[in-house]
Amino acid sequence: MAESMKAVVITEFGGPEVLRVQTVERPRPGSKEILVRVSSSGLNRADLIQRMGNYPAPPESPQDIPGLEYSGVVEEVGPNVTLWKVGDRVMGILGGGGYAEFVVVHERTAVKIPAGVETVEAGAIPEVFMTAFDALFRQMNLSEGESVLIHAVGSGVGTAAVQLTQSAGVRAIGTSRTPQKVDRALELGLDVGILGDDNWPERVLEASGGEGVDVILDLVGGAYLEGNLKVMASEGRHVVVGVPSGARGQIDLRLLMKKRALIKGTVLRARPLEEKISLAREFEHRVCPLFAARKVRPVVDSTYRPEAVSEAHTAMAENRNFGKLLLTWE
Amino acid sequence: MAESMKAVVITEFGGPEVLRVQTVERPRPGSKEILVRVSSSGLNRADLIQRMGNYPAPPESPQDIPGLEYSGVVEEVGPNVTLWKVGDRVMGILGGGGYAEFVVVHERTAVKIPAGVETVEAGAIPEVFMTAFDALFRQMNLSEGESVLIHAVGSGVGTAAVQLTQSAGVRAIGTSRTPQKVDRALELGLDVGILGDDNWPERVLEASGGEGVDVILDLVGGAYLEGNLKVMASEGRHVVVGVPSGARGQIDLRLLMKKRALIKGTVLRARPLEEKISLAREFEHRVCPLFAARKVRPVVDSTYRPEAVSEAHTAMAENRNFGKLLLTWE
Repeated sequence: MAESMKAVVITEFGGPEVLRVQTVERPRPGSKEILVRVSSSGLNRADLIQRMGNYPAPPESPQDIPGLEYSGVVEEVGPNVTLWKVGDRVMGILGGGGYAEFVVVHERTAVKIPAGVETVEAGAIPEVFMTAFDALFRQMNLSEGESVLIHAVGSGVGTAAVQLTQSAGVRAIGTSRTPQKVDRALELGLDVGILGDDNWPERVLEASGGEGVDVILDLVGGAYLEGNLKVMASEGRHVVVGVPSGARGQIDLRLLMKKRALIKGTVLRARPLEEKISLAREFEHRVCPLFAARKVRPVVDSTYRPEAVSEAHTAMAENRNFGKLLLTWE
Repeated sequence: MAESMKAVVITEFGGPEVLRVQTVERPRPGSKEILVRVSSSGLNRADLIQRMGNYPAPPESPQDIPGLEYSGVVEEVGPNVTLWKVGDRVMGILGGGGYAEFVVVHERTAVKIPAGVETVEAGAIPEVFMTAFDALFRQMNLSEGESVLIHAVGSGVGTAAVQLTQSAGVRAIGTSRTPQKVDRALELGLDVGILGDDNWPERVLEASGGEGVDVILDLVGGAYLEGNLKVMASEGRHVVVGVPSGARGQIDLRLLMKKRALIKGTVLRARPLEEKISLAREFEHRVCPLFAARKVRPVVDSTYRPEAVSEAHTAMAENRNFGKLLLTWE
């Protein structure tokens, strides 16, 4: 007989009120898979879009339970598991189903929670730190001595990117439309904070000595597209991670040619298993030691009980958070 | 006393009529430089833009003599030249000054004209073959078994790209707004030819089995921008080499993210010397043997005497050519 668990379910597409905690079937680990008792589930903007019916989960993930990441403790190991044993502390990204008491994942997509990081707060790590690490360092080859512009610097990915770039010897300029978020990002190690008003491109150019920035981490989208191309240095690289301001924008291809610049879109969710594994293994090897050494840390804005998930979604939609919002199951 | 030579001079910015053959000072080779007696000077669309005053030459190049490439014979070697001797047949790209009887270049930017290629027709090689080779294979990492979409397939870069991709085991789909150019590109080895009317995106998707193309070589620009993103495969790469249809266009960043696609601009002219050298050396090593083996060949539409340069510019502006237009000095 199948065991059950609590999970947050999208009962129909719509506003935050459609989310309900329900009792559902507990998933079971297959070969090479582990069952994790979830400590916390990070919220992501993509969850809001999925809830509204505009971002279906990949076919192999639960369709009606949102949640792209988890932290927790291994509860059970499936056949042929070699990396983990019951009781190990793990975290990772998911195609969906993260808002639940239990998740099942391929053992090689799970990452060991670094020493010194609590299991609950580790739920704030996977999506934002993996996204920032993958986009900036694996895809854009951001290197020591270069400069980066981080938009929406108070977001989850923004706060992760500030810390990762600081520890990599990269000069980070960040924007936010909220002055208090700019200030808090400066405390996290941001080199130059800029208010995201109409004059941000001029200020970024000033802050980069007129030369422009080498890499842009874009969590804003269409509204900033023209400005982004203006502030890119020669051979600049612009990576688009989120488009809350809108997806569409104008681009000047002649300027793109002149600068020999590139714009690339990225997303973690839709990647095939082997790429998620590759990212997880490299992340554990290269980024987790920074947590253990206290050079970077998860930034948690607030935690919510699962019953208050609608409230958490509203807070994210209103952009009130600095860093991550978590659902806690313990 | 300085020696003189004939050159095509931009007497003022304007239409084709502002170009005049005049007698100017012959350049002299410095250390590591060679003086080349030009056999032919390829025309490029950029020359038309420069003539109109919208594309100034880099500071180290002649400002009033257009011309981005040459073929010819080494006339004199400067001090410390080790690669070439008088009489060697060479070709290469230039920052400007190519419409002249003589050019001076750094010896390491010159490429040996392959056996079996006549010196005059070699003037049709450097810009278009180096641009296509660099954009597709060095920047976009186009690989055997992948597919490519080549817009303006009858242009100089287009005809070079068709041949290079064929010899690399890449499936090439090409568009042109002129049915005759589509036919001629098919004769050159293009796998699928498509008329560049409003339905080209649907036809490209059909021709790629619904999956889209891996790489787009774009010689059209703004007008095709939205269609290009639609026909790109997952992780597709779009490289922008020219924008005769206009520089501006709309882009859907959410689709860019979903496809994890990239758009990159490129231009040869503005690159620093070391990059031009690196490209020339790799081109000689990897591409020139294909000419010697008759697997690829320069495509010359017409040759013009320097006195008829205005006529040649008009032909290019009207897009009448299939392949390259050359000025011949012999």
